[in-house]
Amino acid sequence: MDGYIGWPLALHHLALGNEVCGVDDFSKRQCIDEIGSWSALPIPSMEKRIDILSKKYGNKIKFYQGDVINSQFTDDVVKKFKPDSIVHLAEQGSAPYSMMDQSRTLYTQNNNVIGTLNVLFAMRNHAPKSHLVKLGTMGEYGTPDLDIAEGFFEVEFRGKKATMPYPRFAGSWYHWTKVHDSNNVMFACKLYGLCSTDIMQGVVYGTRIKEITDENLFTRFSFDAVFGTVINRYCAEAIIGHPLTVYGKGGQTRGFLALQDSIQCISLLIDNPPEKGEYHVVNQFDEQYSVSGLAERVKRIGDKKGLDVSIQRIENPRVEKEEHYYKADHDQLKKLGFKATRHIDDEIGVMLDDLSEFDYRIQEKKDSLLRMIKWHEATEKQVMPNPSVR
Amino acid sequence: MDGYIGWPLALHHLALGNEVCGVDDFSKRQCIDEIGSWSALPIPSMEKRIDILSKKYGNKIKFYQGDVINSQFTDDVVKKFKPDSIVHLAEQGSAPYSMMDQSRTLYTQNNNVIGTLNVLFAMRNHAPKSHLVKLGTMGEYGTPDLDIAEGFFEVEFRGKKATMPYPRFAGSWYHWTKVHDSNNVMFACKLYGLCSTDIMQGVVYGTRIKEITDENLFTRFSFDAVFGTVINRYCAEAIIGHPLTVYGKGGQTRGFLALQDSIQCISLLIDNPPEKGEYHVVNQFDEQYSVSGLAERVKRIGDKKGLDVSIQRIENPRVEKEEHYYKADHDQLKKLGFKATRHIDDEIGVMLDDLSEFDYRIQEKKDSLLRMIKWHEATEKQVMPNPSVR
Repeated sequence: MDGYIGWPLALHHLALGNEVCGVDDFSKRQCIDEIGSWSALPIPSMEKRIDILSKKYGNKIKFYQGDVINSQFTDDVVKKFKPDSIVHLAEQGSAPYSMMDQSRTLYTQNNNVIGTLNVLFAMRNHAPKSHLVKLGTMGEYGTPDLDIAEGFFEVEFRGKKATMPYPRFAGSWYHWTKVHDSNNVMFACKLYGLCSTDIMQGVVYGTRIKEITDENLFTRFSFDAVFGTVINRYCAEAIIGHPLTVYGKGGQTRGFLALQDSIQCISLLIDNPPEKGEYHVVNQFDEQYSVSGLAERVKRIGDKKGLDVSIQRIENPRVEKEEHYYKADHDQLKKLGFKATRHIDDEIGVMLDDLSEFDYRIQEKKDSLLRMIKWHEATEKQVMPNPSVR
Repeated sequence: MDGYIGWPLALHHLALGNEVCGVDDFSKRQCIDEIGSWSALPIPSMEKRIDILSKKYGNKIKFYQGDVINSQFTDDVVKKFKPDSIVHLAEQGSAPYSMMDQSRTLYTQNNNVIGTLNVLFAMRNHAPKSHLVKLGTMGEYGTPDLDIAEGFFEVEFRGKKATMPYPRFAGSWYHWTKVHDSNNVMFACKLYGLCSTDIMQGVVYGTRIKEITDENLFTRFSFDAVFGTVINRYCAEAIIGHPLTVYGKGGQTRGFLALQDSIQCISLLIDNPPEKGEYHVVNQFDEQYSVSGLAERVKRIGDKKGLDVSIQRIENPRVEKEEHYYKADHDQLKKLGFKATRHIDDEIGVMLDDLSEFDYRIQEKKDSLLRMIKWHEATEKQVMPNPSVR
């Protein structure tokens, strides 16, 4: 629960009066440190975070430090806490990090696949009725030349019809782990009669949710080229007068969602578990934007605030289509009552205001904005003998 | 190259005059030993096997003992040998074994996914022009209510058409690793400009290929309920007067292929590499049969040979449809010139003859014929802290 989404999700559910048990091994802090970056918003140690929460919520907050790749640890936590819902965010979540070199590819695939299996076995062993809310990504689908359905679609082939999993074509070693995990989770639901909602989430942006009422409650905000997602990175660049770095032609189009609304969606899904044995997939985003359109938007809003924002097209380090068809369904969450509460322009304004107080932190790790990981070639040809030991 | 297919494939290519470099960590010998079984046909140690081959083929045969899960080992072998083709058979290949307990699920997924990634990275690093012939399985597709295409199909969805990966729905943790690997290989071809042929192979049966000219050259023949595939298991049962064990209704239909023809197909594919950056998928089998039809067939042939063969329907330990539509394309290999050389009835006759000499070996490990692994519940609830260390 030390990550960008896990922390505010815990805050939100504690505020609702729910019991929350967090788990983290702090590997994200370590990975971000490795690439020479940090959070633009300063975040306290987990010890301090838990102190703050315990003062406010007593024993409604629990925390276990450990790695879900350790089967015994994962099993023990689920056995002790017996959760109604498990929100599984414990994956290495950066595509560029997974593309850096062989050792990080292996780390990402091993960590994500084995960690998710451990969560599934722990549920089967100790909490078979709990609801697994698993974070996948819209990136699992890639950018096919067809409308993107929500997980499954009806296919007609040679005169017969059937409902089939929507084909996936991911664009990084990280994104493929999400596909592997979706497949494993789908199978476990069928096999062991578990239930899961698999969230194909778009790109999340923002510094805040309403429960982040003071600086001690800030969530991690990555802005570097490895862990920072596009809008967040643009806002950090705008703050320090660095040109907004648009990869290639900039026609890359994706679904986006404010952090506040991501928490709203996840919470709606927690409250609406599938039946035993069922596996649901939802596409979770608010609107689609192209990365060049987003740069224009950040420039317009930044300029209004007196920042002098410029845009620079740089060579695309990724292997991806820079102009393509993109139209993804996202109706399931609306049916459950999701309504976006944040307009992207307002949110960018809030982000620029929040970040302006910490411009010196972005400035200090400025080099990490241009830490480009080229998809074609791992930068270091390092080989690691044992993928699960770091 | 110590396995059922790897060994005869090596014999065949040595006989053709090719240089062959084998790799094995003998984990299959270990796994089969773990479940209380062995090969019905006695096979020598690898040391003796290599001795025999070296006497006949000199330095055209090389062998390295090691585990492809070790990145450095895999990298070193590819760097030293610089193969034109890599036939990757180094996976934990038993569905029941992968379903035994959590530790074996994790072992299977980690071993297969990380091993395949290491092969891909070793190719990229040292042999980017070589051709990866990877063994997948027809089981990746499951049993959809549609014709099964060969890897990709043209989909029409909401008025637009696109060629997409054919959706996969595997039926065991092992089968899912094959899906994960297919996805990773497909991505590596695109990303690094490698080329690969991914073989969706049906169930292979048989004791021989033409290069197995004496008992010292026998390949492994598994007959137990964990590693033995259906026809092979039926033949072993027939030999010792054990009823042929049909799981459930027996309408489970799959594609089948004689060992001799599997070697023919793999060799055809080796000779027909895709272009750089291309990923081909072929469905590799000769004919479709149901498991109850196969039992009838083994009974008919066995009875003619004076064996008194009975058939027993037993509770299906697997989670699978027992009556279903099944029609899978298998045209690519025919286009490359594949013609089946073995009729299933002749092959079953040869198998019964070969096995009859070693009936005492089947008898001795008879219990392993009924070592049923129930798909729903892992038999041992063992948890293992580190999946990559055994």
